[in-house]
Amino acid sequence: MPVRAREIGINIGRGKPGKHNAITDVPGVKVGHVTLIEGKGKLVVGKGPVRTGVTMILGHPGHPFDEPLYAGAHWFNGNGELTGMAWIQEFGLLTSPIALTNSSSVGVVRDAIGSIEASMLLPEQNPWSLPVVGETWDAALNDMAGGHVKPEHVWEAFRKAKDGPVAEGNVGGGTAQIAFGFKSGIGTASRKLPDSDGGWTVGVLLQANHGRRDNLTVLGAPVGEEIPATAVPFPQPPEATYRPGAGSIPIIVATDAPLLPHQCQRLARRAGIGMLRSGGLAENDSGDLFFAFSTANRGKIPGPNIVHSPLKHDLTVLTDAFLDPIFEAAAEATEEAILNSLLMAETMTGRDNVTAHALPPALLLKILAKYKRGPRPAGS
Amino acid sequence: MPVRAREIGINIGRGKPGKHNAITDVPGVKVGHVTLIEGKGKLVVGKGPVRTGVTMILGHPGHPFDEPLYAGAHWFNGNGELTGMAWIQEFGLLTSPIALTNSSSVGVVRDAIGSIEASMLLPEQNPWSLPVVGETWDAALNDMAGGHVKPEHVWEAFRKAKDGPVAEGNVGGGTAQIAFGFKSGIGTASRKLPDSDGGWTVGVLLQANHGRRDNLTVLGAPVGEEIPATAVPFPQPPEATYRPGAGSIPIIVATDAPLLPHQCQRLARRAGIGMLRSGGLAENDSGDLFFAFSTANRGKIPGPNIVHSPLKHDLTVLTDAFLDPIFEAAAEATEEAILNSLLMAETMTGRDNVTAHALPPALLLKILAKYKRGPRPAGS
Amino acid sequence: MPVRAREIGINIGRGKPGKHNAITDVPGVKVGHVTLIEGKGKLVVGKGPVRTGVTMILGHPGHPFDEPLYAGAHWFNGNGELTGMAWIQEFGLLTSPIALTNSSSVGVVRDAIGSIEASMLLPEQNPWSLPVVGETWDAALNDMAGGHVKPEHVWEAFRKAKDGPVAEGNVGGGTAQIAFGFKSGIGTASRKLPDSDGGWTVGVLLQANHGRRDNLTVLGAPVGEEIPATAVPFPQPPEATYRPGAGSIPIIVATDAPLLPHQCQRLARRAGIGMLRSGGLAENDSGDLFFAFSTANRGKIPGPNIVHSPLKHDLTVLTDAFLDPIFEAAAEATEEAILNSLLMAETMTGRDNVTAHALPPALLLKILAKYKRGPRPAGS
Amino acid sequence: MPVRAREIGINIGRGKPGKHNAITDVPGVKVGHVTLIEGKGKLVVGKGPVRTGVTMILGHPGHPFDEPLYAGAHWFNGNGELTGMAWIQEFGLLTSPIALTNSSSVGVVRDAIGSIEASMLLPEQNPWSLPVVGETWDAALNDMAGGHVKPEHVWEAFRKAKDGPVAEGNVGGGTAQIAFGFKSGIGTASRKLPDSDGGWTVGVLLQANHGRRDNLTVLGAPVGEEIPATAVPFPQPPEATYRPGAGSIPIIVATDAPLLPHQCQRLARRAGIGMLRSGGLAENDSGDLFFAFSTANRGKIPGPNIVHSPLKHDLTVLTDAFLDPIFEAAAEATEEAILNSLLMAETMTGRDNVTAHALPPALLLKILAKYKRGPRPAGS
Repeated sequence: MPVRAREIGINIGRGKPGKHNAITDVPGVKVGHVTLIEGKGKLVVGKGPVRTGVTMILGHPGHPFDEPLYAGAHWFNGNGELTGMAWIQEFGLLTSPIALTNSSSVGVVRDAIGSIEASMLLPEQNPWSLPVVGETWDAALNDMAGGHVKPEHVWEAFRKAKDGPVAEGNVGGGTAQIAFGFKSGIGTASRKLPDSDGGWTVGVLLQANHGRRDNLTVLGAPVGEEIPATAVPFPQPPEATYRPGAGSIPIIVATDAPLLPHQCQRLARRAGIGMLRSGGLAENDSGDLFFAFSTANRGKIPGPNIVHSPLKHDLTVLTDAFLDPIFEAAAEATEEAILNSLLMAETMTGRDNVTAHALPPALLLKILAKYKRGPRPAGS
Repeated sequence: MPVRAREIGINIGRGKPGKHNAITDVPGVKVGHVTLIEGKGKLVVGKGPVRTGVTMILGHPGHPFDEPLYAGAHWFNGNGELTGMAWIQEFGLLTSPIALTNSSSVGVVRDAIGSIEASMLLPEQNPWSLPVVGETWDAALNDMAGGHVKPEHVWEAFRKAKDGPVAEGNVGGGTAQIAFGFKSGIGTASRKLPDSDGGWTVGVLLQANHGRRDNLTVLGAPVGEEIPATAVPFPQPPEATYRPGAGSIPIIVATDAPLLPHQCQRLARRAGIGMLRSGGLAENDSGDLFFAFSTANRGKIPGPNIVHSPLKHDLTVLTDAFLDPIFEAAAEATEEAILNSLLMAETMTGRDNVTAHALPPALLLKILAKYKRGPRPAGS
Repeated sequence: MPVRAREIGINIGRGKPGKHNAITDVPGVKVGHVTLIEGKGKLVVGKGPVRTGVTMILGHPGHPFDEPLYAGAHWFNGNGELTGMAWIQEFGLLTSPIALTNSSSVGVVRDAIGSIEASMLLPEQNPWSLPVVGETWDAALNDMAGGHVKPEHVWEAFRKAKDGPVAEGNVGGGTAQIAFGFKSGIGTASRKLPDSDGGWTVGVLLQANHGRRDNLTVLGAPVGEEIPATAVPFPQPPEATYRPGAGSIPIIVATDAPLLPHQCQRLARRAGIGMLRSGGLAENDSGDLFFAFSTANRGKIPGPNIVHSPLKHDLTVLTDAFLDPIFEAAAEATEEAILNSLLMAETMTGRDNVTAHALPPALLLKILAKYKRGPRPAGS
Repeated sequence: MPVRAREIGINIGRGKPGKHNAITDVPGVKVGHVTLIEGKGKLVVGKGPVRTGVTMILGHPGHPFDEPLYAGAHWFNGNGELTGMAWIQEFGLLTSPIALTNSSSVGVVRDAIGSIEASMLLPEQNPWSLPVVGETWDAALNDMAGGHVKPEHVWEAFRKAKDGPVAEGNVGGGTAQIAFGFKSGIGTASRKLPDSDGGWTVGVLLQANHGRRDNLTVLGAPVGEEIPATAVPFPQPPEATYRPGAGSIPIIVATDAPLLPHQCQRLARRAGIGMLRSGGLAENDSGDLFFAFSTANRGKIPGPNIVHSPLKHDLTVLTDAFLDPIFEAAAEATEEAILNSLLMAETMTGRDNVTAHALPPALLLKILAKYKRGPRPAGS
């Protein structure tokens, strides 16, 4: 029975979540999932079984190109793809929807986002887009080489994007992911800072497909070590599809704190803290790519495609000395989102009858109790 | 009448070219173009006119994934896409064919390369690929949003890739490019170092779509300033499709010198020298992304997908003190390849009857003579 | 009573330490400390009280410039200095001793290392050096602006450098450091991999001056939260000298695994994992700068100052697929070295009678027991 | 007879210089030199002959730490030192004077700047500084290992810093530099943009100690090739002290255009364009390190050492679309400053009677005339 960490009393860190404890708590941010599940049994490339999808994150309800947001990227281990990296690092501007999908479908999603953006242009504007698309490898359960993600799914995810609660686990790009040897998927969480720290919201959404079982750590407790294969089996058969520690975890961080591009890059780096706290090791085979953006100066930053931009523009910027609570919020929300990605996922059987098993919440709570890490009041 | 720079006595720099004066002079390197030209008249998105294509570069004749090559990337201005950047910067390994295409087709080419690589796998291997795909914007002449590059074109470019002479100008990814306000396209050149400098070959291939007319410089002469619109018109109509200085120039550098990843990255940076010598300014709107690889240690570096790799392996490495001639060769070959991309391109009329005009060789020679930069013996 | 973590049964991670559980377990690596402690009472700039020093790490017993080692650097938060960064990132070569000192003495140490290197030159060689010097801020206890580290202290640390056990706590550059609100200093640790993982040694030495008390984590237990100021006072008075979370932690990682420069950079990044596990947050005010080098190819890499280098040279290189145990070793050794830096430090009173208090081992053990993190067999 | 390029009709590029054609044309920027010339004859380390100095650049007349400026750094080839790189890249803040000196004196200058900054503190502030100090190797003429730059010289350069015309050639850090085999030194230049481009000023100051004679290019003409050793001797004797292409060129760019840190980094990169236009090749042995800062938001950015900063602050930022004229100005001013560093330097004899010869202006003009690059109206 899927459940969020906080619903069973697992409160990560000292901060308080936003209303939905989701990336959508950052005002203006929307999320849309398209989940593709079809067929079962033996893998026939191009036929299935299909277990995949696409997740889209919009920075604000307007035109992403005409109202860019400041953004920055970082990777802890670069065994993965995040398109648009040169653009982001040079200009610090998010000018597209962000999407997460499987490793073989990055291209189709990237081009489709370009089409979406082209469709929003004024007649005198030229098609131009450098979309941000991340990925993880879902071939253990999915016919990943089969090309099942189509442009229309990308459009659908874009149209379905909405604010409010965000579906987690076996949805969107996270449909067939596996983390720490458990079924995982999409996870999200947020933090709302006290007014004394600026009152900003920091939201995280990630697609967890990383980590070795024995490294899984929750609230500092060695949870993974306590769950042998006899308690919860590893994905099986066949063994060949699953190499411990291989995998990736793209992490998207959003905030309404007024950050400049280099501050966004610094914030992106802190997603790694949450990843490491929960037992990621940034393994050689892992694509730990992080992306952060700030919604604060929306409408003030001229879009790169606008013909008559003003020479200069005014901005509001956070003073560096107030970054620590935001860094901590990103670390906490990441740690919690990873846990949500596990707890909200359900056991799934995919191609060649490979099954990935969910992490049982009751077992988790039992282990936490052993290490005196049981339920405690939120924000304590 | 298309002609290569060297055929009309324009010899860039002091070095000597390889046999074909092409990137394929580096032993093992192959190039394949697919050129798509169809229709004329008014732009109807999805119908045409089509003026585009894909160019593929193979580092060696074997499996790119099982025999990776050391590689490095750099950008001078990051207004463009080069997929696989995180992987390249983290691991320094080229594990895929390299492709150049139009800005809207990066995704389809990227995914198709993944399919090509998947098709080469052994049964026990998993599909896995982080392809390197670069792009330039060809919408001034081409129905770029129309999605005319298909996976089958990528396969075709892969199958057609061969060594020997390389077609230049209006071919492959360069079909509809425009540089310095002239029709341009694909250009290539090479240098063969004397044995005293190691005897290495350095080859360059690029897709030139950058530069402002008045900045074009050849052998130090201000060629662009001497060619007003009355002499050679700028692309026209409509004005809206063409913004001077907007554009990009992805540059691929290959060598058989035994370079480590960080040395490849340093070499990639030197492509910028050739670009700047010919008048590029790394404008705000330009995607000046460079990629270099070394074929030298092929077969010694275990592929990332091989299950039973040796713990360690032996390599041969160039001593840093011998890098300067290689750097200079890359700079010279880049400068010459840019000139070839102009001289080998032919005037083209594309969508909405926009016409981009070729640079007339005779005019170029006349200007060079004025600045005492006329023909001189090669390598002098 | 200073004690090392492992002596009281606190065994970090699953790996086994080398003989001395120190960076000197990497064959050839030597460490030398010079500790300057003099005077007490009110601060008079230039007079004291003096609580500082310099720690020097030699990569091998030979000439650092003529036998360079591959190296790489990374920072998690760049609020600090590590000289030589451009050189290291461009060439990937360690060509000098490495030193750690206080923030105001980086320059004098840097120039003195240049003198040491110049003194080792042959007559036909030119003086040339880009030394690696890191720092932390020790002004809470030390007359840091007083310039008490002199060139002769740098020479002395160089001459005293030796293999075998390494002094920790209030010595060398770590003399007056404070971490997590406790007295800290120099810490070191190592891991010796099993032969099945290559049998390499990974050693870490660091100068811990970072972290907020309430974030201190040991074996996943929230140790810092359990030690209020009433149990162990924060440094005092005056408050002005101490800002929680301000501070830095330069970390040096050495290994005999045969790593290339980009692999050293990747290894350096993993020092951050150990730092984060023990509760560092890479705060805005923290200089978390990491440096890693490999002793493996000593003697094969020509020095940059040698006139008659060979054109190329052979190397041995670790296959990427075997990096994970080395990454994990670096993370574990860092976490343990941080703990050693605390446990081996003794309460110190410095300028203006500011006192920084040591972390009592018994109290630490009591808290660990509460969280079921008591002594367990090493390497279990 | 030293002369500036523009005084003899050599007008680089299309832009117009500011009032003094110097970095000090950027309002608020000041420059101070201390030049140390003493003794002659045989080198005795520690005694001389002394041919060196220090050049200091202040971003504004106020406290550099309490009123930081946005800044960014870049290197084209990292064979050199520029302290403070981690800080600059992480925070994008210039919080110190900038200094240029010889390679062996970086440390003493760095620490002395720390003392200068400490002397400006309020009683409740802590000493804290991460100064920016660059260097070039002047040992061909100077007793570089002799340690002749003292803290008092750094203070003197700081006190002497002023606006208005800037001395060039054999002064300050540039006293004993050699570029392209000619005597060189400090060079400066500026550009004032037309109001239609924002009216900003861009100023450059550099210390030229780089380049191979035969690569020297002026206005595109191959000047170096035309000046054999028989016309102007190379530095001599002894040969051992001088290796063609070894050397470095740190370049400082200032502007009053309102740039963010990542925009400053992009601007710094464009200094490389000017360097390459004049024939630099970013050789393996060259330290081509560039630094750019913007004076525009002075007073709006809270200093990192201020206790009671506002949570956020307002800024003015240049729209990216207006960067190209600023990039071009930096390229032009760099090219002109390099030429000024040569033309304003005078033949110097230094240690062991090594003599470096100046570039004769008349010879230069003659060669330019040959290539039709003679005097033309400024800004044409």
